[in-house]
Amino acid sequence: MKYPTIKLNKRGIKRYLENHLRFSFQEVLQFEKVKELIPAGSIVNIISEDNFFLGCGYFNPQSYYVLKLLTKEEATIDEEFFLKKFSKALELRKILYPNEKCFRLIFSEGDFLPGLIIDIYGNIAVVQIQTLGMERFKNFIIGALKKFSDLKAIVLKNDSSKRLEEKLELYVEVAYGETEEIILVEMDEIKFLIPILKGQKTGFFLDQRENRRFLRSIAKDYTVLDGFSYTGGFSFYALKGGAKMAYLIDRSDFALSLAEEIAKINGWKDKVLTMKGDVLQILKNPPKSDILILDPPAFIKTFKDIKAGEKKYENLYFSGVRALERGLLFAFSCSYFLKIEKMKEMIKNSLKKLNKDGTIIFHGYQAPDHPVNPFVEETFYLKGLGIYIK
Amino acid sequence: MKYPTIKLNKRGIKRYLENHLRFSFQEVLQFEKVKELIPAGSIVNIISEDNFFLGCGYFNPQSYYVLKLLTKEEATIDEEFFLKKFSKALELRKILYPNEKCFRLIFSEGDFLPGLIIDIYGNIAVVQIQTLGMERFKNFIIGALKKFSDLKAIVLKNDSSKRLEEKLELYVEVAYGETEEIILVEMDEIKFLIPILKGQKTGFFLDQRENRRFLRSIAKDYTVLDGFSYTGGFSFYALKGGAKMAYLIDRSDFALSLAEEIAKINGWKDKVLTMKGDVLQILKNPPKSDILILDPPAFIKTFKDIKAGEKKYENLYFSGVRALERGLLFAFSCSYFLKIEKMKEMIKNSLKKLNKDGTIIFHGYQAPDHPVNPFVEETFYLKGLGIYIK
Repeated sequence: MKYPTIKLNKRGIKRYLENHLRFSFQEVLQFEKVKELIPAGSIVNIISEDNFFLGCGYFNPQSYYVLKLLTKEEATIDEEFFLKKFSKALELRKILYPNEKCFRLIFSEGDFLPGLIIDIYGNIAVVQIQTLGMERFKNFIIGALKKFSDLKAIVLKNDSSKRLEEKLELYVEVAYGETEEIILVEMDEIKFLIPILKGQKTGFFLDQRENRRFLRSIAKDYTVLDGFSYTGGFSFYALKGGAKMAYLIDRSDFALSLAEEIAKINGWKDKVLTMKGDVLQILKNPPKSDILILDPPAFIKTFKDIKAGEKKYENLYFSGVRALERGLLFAFSCSYFLKIEKMKEMIKNSLKKLNKDGTIIFHGYQAPDHPVNPFVEETFYLKGLGIYIK
Repeated sequence: MKYPTIKLNKRGIKRYLENHLRFSFQEVLQFEKVKELIPAGSIVNIISEDNFFLGCGYFNPQSYYVLKLLTKEEATIDEEFFLKKFSKALELRKILYPNEKCFRLIFSEGDFLPGLIIDIYGNIAVVQIQTLGMERFKNFIIGALKKFSDLKAIVLKNDSSKRLEEKLELYVEVAYGETEEIILVEMDEIKFLIPILKGQKTGFFLDQRENRRFLRSIAKDYTVLDGFSYTGGFSFYALKGGAKMAYLIDRSDFALSLAEEIAKINGWKDKVLTMKGDVLQILKNPPKSDILILDPPAFIKTFKDIKAGEKKYENLYFSGVRALERGLLFAFSCSYFLKIEKMKEMIKNSLKKLNKDGTIIFHGYQAPDHPVNPFVEETFYLKGLGIYIK
């Protein structure tokens, strides 16, 4: 298609050849001029200095990465383009979760669609658009999703603060069809209520599925203390695995009352106890448990937060090691900036300080429907360690 | 107990306080003198310069780590000592695999018993002793195992080349009871034949269990190409998950004919095809498959092998990425010296060179009955990546 063109400079070409999908202003030839000529949010053709076609993407001079690649082929970015990407993405999910009706269909750069997240909950799609460029394709995305499968509703859950960096407004909207605020779905034979309009992110954290499955495999007869439980993903997998009891700690009344509802519909009313409050406070005198889950929100959102965020993680993990007399501690982080090696250091320091013996029996990562693009490091974000304390 | 004493120097104390279990000659006070006085393989009490008791361990001046810690408590190293350690280790395995009869009971430093490996296959224990110090405890170990549970036989599979470094002879011996050369067991509802006397290591690679379980969860209707299959662990988990067909590649006639037997007893005779030969050769023109497993032996056994070994891994992974038209490549390494980041680099390079799109959908590590001691880095050795190639 005839789109405005942007040329990459030498540095940009090098990055392109390394399969990166994102380019900073320093990688664009004559950026200052380009910035004047091409409006923010435009679809552009990307070419080399000698006019060799490199791909098609979108442009926003206000972003850190001003240029994001959508495809290396000559393409018209339209409904058809997205439909093809969605079908391609679905192929992987069919391999991974052939019998599941809930999964992440599109994980941004992990599915070669920077700035787009789509979670499928049965016949409801919840879409998160994170960039101005992607926002321009809103109608294509909705159109493609409608053709893609027999959806009852499409929700635009565009309330992430990431959008502010792109000067995008925050809104939540049912863009197609009709839906309840809270929907009932089944995952791994557990019933869940998903607050698709008012919950966190798309309403549920699908990225923990494999880690929850591991918990399910070992939870029989144990008591689980679920820190930062949200609506209880970990707890309910544990109960499915035969856990005796789950204590859910969260600050949100909304999340905890939803968890209570979920417990009820699964027949686990008497096995769930919710505790509203601060995890650190509760860990000072926690109910006795065999398994402790610590799955906090991202403490490090940008490069600048690293130091302060690391302190928070260190403090939390230390409190976890201290709180658990013996048993299994699962310590997670969804901050890209916190590396697994650093997490191990924190755990080691905690064990040392508290004079406890612990071994690492589990390494967990984001579920496979959140594919890591090896050329976009930031797509690898969720990590967890399972520590057996003796 | 009254054992000869060894004093740690300042550096040794520092290491001790960091929870290390192994000490080099540079961390022993007056090593040259100690070497003359204390015979190799002795049990020793470890103390500080000012005679503060630090723990009990064993000594071998010929090892790189001359001193290995067994406990920080004052103890008599006897049958009772091992029995307690075994019971403690079993507690974790009961959590991890409550319904399984095969598991690793003791994983060296991961279970605070440096130099000792014990795999349990139903009512048979296969023991590997890797150090002179541990060899001295042979009778305690056998005695404790006999008391520990109702075993039919205890095998000493002491044929690892690691023993040569400790100047220990290589031998395989049924130390107690009676056993067939090849035993029939069940793991995750799959029947396996384990060659406990003539196979590799203890006869089976239990460390891949969780990774095999993941494969099982996604293998339905697919064709699997199993490189370095040994007796087919991955293939049989895939078939259990509904795979259409498994091709096993190995150099060992013995391993492949055993795999054929295993296929037969599970009713999968027509779904297994063995290919004797070199994986790299076969990958040049492989049977078409959806899933390719590459689980080679350790290419890097010591620090000195790093460069040559990395080349081998790079070459192998490249061949894998090239061989798989589309589908899932599972690339493993059991070399401690090959880091996961390096593996990712290799995969990235292969994708780039071959101009293929790939995302990482799986990170795999050693099974949890091979606990990682966070203070002994080498206990973290098995790594794997699942790459989805589009």
